[in-house]
Amino acid sequence: MAQKPSIPKGTRDFGPVEMAGRNYIFDTIRSVFKLYGYAPIETPSMENLSTLLGKYGDEGDKLLFRILNSGDAFSGIDFSQFHVEGGAPDEYNSKALSLKVCEKGLRYDLTVPFARYVVQHQNDIAFPFKRYQIQPVWRADRPQKGRYREFYQCDVDVIGSKSLLNELELVQIVDKVFSIFGISVCIKINNRKVLTGLAEICGFPDKVVDITVAIDKIDKIGLEAVEAEMKEAGLPESAVEVIRPVLLLKGDVQEKLSVMRGLMSGGSASGAVSETGLKGLDELDELFGLIAGAGVGQETELDLSLARGLNYYTGAIFEVKAKDFAIGSICGGGRYDNLTGIFGLPGMSGVGISFGADRIYDVLTGLDKFPSGMKSSAKILFANMGDSEVRYLVPVVKALRDAGVSCEIYPDTAKLKKQFDYADRKAIPFISIVGGDEIAGNSVNVKNLESGEQKNFSKDDIQSIIDFIR
Amino acid sequence: MAQKPSIPKGTRDFGPVEMAGRNYIFDTIRSVFKLYGYAPIETPSMENLSTLLGKYGDEGDKLLFRILNSGDAFSGIDFSQFHVEGGAPDEYNSKALSLKVCEKGLRYDLTVPFARYVVQHQNDIAFPFKRYQIQPVWRADRPQKGRYREFYQCDVDVIGSKSLLNELELVQIVDKVFSIFGISVCIKINNRKVLTGLAEICGFPDKVVDITVAIDKIDKIGLEAVEAEMKEAGLPESAVEVIRPVLLLKGDVQEKLSVMRGLMSGGSASGAVSETGLKGLDELDELFGLIAGAGVGQETELDLSLARGLNYYTGAIFEVKAKDFAIGSICGGGRYDNLTGIFGLPGMSGVGISFGADRIYDVLTGLDKFPSGMKSSAKILFANMGDSEVRYLVPVVKALRDAGVSCEIYPDTAKLKKQFDYADRKAIPFISIVGGDEIAGNSVNVKNLESGEQKNFSKDDIQSIIDFIR
Repeated sequence: MAQKPSIPKGTRDFGPVEMAGRNYIFDTIRSVFKLYGYAPIETPSMENLSTLLGKYGDEGDKLLFRILNSGDAFSGIDFSQFHVEGGAPDEYNSKALSLKVCEKGLRYDLTVPFARYVVQHQNDIAFPFKRYQIQPVWRADRPQKGRYREFYQCDVDVIGSKSLLNELELVQIVDKVFSIFGISVCIKINNRKVLTGLAEICGFPDKVVDITVAIDKIDKIGLEAVEAEMKEAGLPESAVEVIRPVLLLKGDVQEKLSVMRGLMSGGSASGAVSETGLKGLDELDELFGLIAGAGVGQETELDLSLARGLNYYTGAIFEVKAKDFAIGSICGGGRYDNLTGIFGLPGMSGVGISFGADRIYDVLTGLDKFPSGMKSSAKILFANMGDSEVRYLVPVVKALRDAGVSCEIYPDTAKLKKQFDYADRKAIPFISIVGGDEIAGNSVNVKNLESGEQKNFSKDDIQSIIDFIR
Repeated sequence: MAQKPSIPKGTRDFGPVEMAGRNYIFDTIRSVFKLYGYAPIETPSMENLSTLLGKYGDEGDKLLFRILNSGDAFSGIDFSQFHVEGGAPDEYNSKALSLKVCEKGLRYDLTVPFARYVVQHQNDIAFPFKRYQIQPVWRADRPQKGRYREFYQCDVDVIGSKSLLNELELVQIVDKVFSIFGISVCIKINNRKVLTGLAEICGFPDKVVDITVAIDKIDKIGLEAVEAEMKEAGLPESAVEVIRPVLLLKGDVQEKLSVMRGLMSGGSASGAVSETGLKGLDELDELFGLIAGAGVGQETELDLSLARGLNYYTGAIFEVKAKDFAIGSICGGGRYDNLTGIFGLPGMSGVGISFGADRIYDVLTGLDKFPSGMKSSAKILFANMGDSEVRYLVPVVKALRDAGVSCEIYPDTAKLKKQFDYADRKAIPFISIVGGDEIAGNSVNVKNLESGEQKNFSKDDIQSIIDFIR
């Protein structure tokens, strides 16, 4: 009868300690989003498959979790039609068949549901629409260290405004969030138009995706491998030569912009001019000017090799790395000009970023930056010495809770060792052990379990108890 | 190309206004759970079907959302084995077939995953384990008004303690939550052992489930229909006669307990005695005594017709109704003695309640009890009169945000009418329109959009601006 309980691979249970850390992360991020006037939305976990399919490439389609239609899902289907011709007798076209028996899928990210939401509710939305969304997403990826089949995304986007003030605000949000966390970061910034410009001046404007995808890997695989990949994609050495100096460019923002302006306006090996590239450089110039004027405390950097894999970016792109902890990007995003077009609302420009909660959790753990005391659920445990002692304590505990102090009475009359052990395992910092003497003296004792300090209070002097345990 | 966007039936998008209301509900409930030392956990949205199947009855099994196995789900299956004998050529046994192609399902409630969690992590848990869990659940119910296929549950449970102090705390939690909400409620309390006792003294101890299920409906269908249902379940008139006076019993707690003690100790029409029933009455007596000593402000009632449909309850049962708004139960729960037995950990007694967020939302809306100002995402909007004006404002806005004031700069230089309209639609209560005159005077003006009051401040006097808009 009894089953050995387990959960699906790639999924996780979060216990009280992990939850305390995760809630600290989500609450902090949420509080900063709010400071900037972003409002929350939530979309359903399931979307129609027609909403999701084709939005993440063929690979993404394969990674969608599909939900079997409820009711009699399989009747009415002629399975022989889905048999793979020439295959084994039991070999079927699962892709086609799944579309027959599944109409819904679990959300794969928050971006597509956001685009769907904006189009569906466009008449109720006050544009520019500033929204944040913190919800889980699901991907049928092969589970491995640090990669899960269910994980949270924290997205913040503004849609319906082309102003670079929005980019500035996102940089300020990143600055503020990681400053609160006590994590030093480098905010890397580039502009997709500069990458388009690069493809143009090297003579292969139609290869911008190949170039972008290759450049995006430079941190992981190095310059030579990136060049090899570009050549494999059909770029001749002459084109690679135009791109190489860009990837190697050093200097501060103004130095980089100046060199790039030269290249884009005819000074490269090809001598070609890119208006798009120059526009991207103007946008970067303006954005870095705004950042300088706003007093952003964390490091910002113009990284011309930053590409980000997603094809829908059209302007600024961002990526955030922790400076003192080796892990991939912990936050990233960019501007897109046509996210909602696929759902019938063209021409809505927007920009957004996404915080990686799992990686931030690892960084906070690794750098020991979680606030102390976060782990404990209650401030004080009242030991249970018997029914009459408990009845004596109930009004004290109620008064403390009414004053906002989290406390517990141990529910059973158990051995003191067991009750101390409970306080220890829950990291409760204070204990009170009230027996006959205390009741006779109308008092309550409280012990600091860390320092050992112990004090007696009048039962009615709730404020002094609060002062002692705060 | 463009699709008309929609979401699956029975699911919902929540926009900023609904989210503000929902977050107010969740945050309030969460803050009270914390005051009582309950800690959060989260479990995966997907569980193995083996964890879920058979836990909710046949009807529940049908309502589980099943997730198609990823990869090549259909190859290797001999569909002919699942053909319904004698049925149409395309008639299949979907139930059996779905088990072949789906290993996982979406969580149906929070109780079974909680039981699974406790057993799986029993060595890491400090018992008694006080946990709360606020997460969505999914049911393939036919969608109808007020019934959704995805909805949140807010559960709070303590497991590993038989003490009635736990029941008291849950009543105190209910009291506190609804007092904060400003909703007057009646907390109805009964004990499943009393219902067992009833079945015993009327001579049909094996019919306790039928009796319970029938009694549970008395509010909806009335006494006569309940009696008819009991007779249909095989109870003779003589048995119904024993139960009838209990359903009609009036009076305060002590009066009811006194009459019931008489019935359970041989004073009923059958003359039979029920030790279990008497134990249930003792527990009720003790619990109501604790409640009286704890100063619970909301109304509590001993409701002997309260049964609650779930079969796993074995002790106290609770149900909460709003007194000034007609809607079903908005909170309910009870004690169970063997929730974890099915997963191999017998003898763990626990008690818990669940808050119905959707109904509470409706009550708060219906009684107009949501806090005012909750709707607005920002306190003040800075109009955008041009690039130099914005540059002038950026440090002001930063200083306000650093002081914890949520504010927005309208990102584009648009017509003032459009910017006012934006403030209006987002319910932003203050606006600042800084132009050349203000810049010349190193000042910032702020207007209260409700009262029309307007004031000028020195650009550096952030504190006075804060005082004006708070």
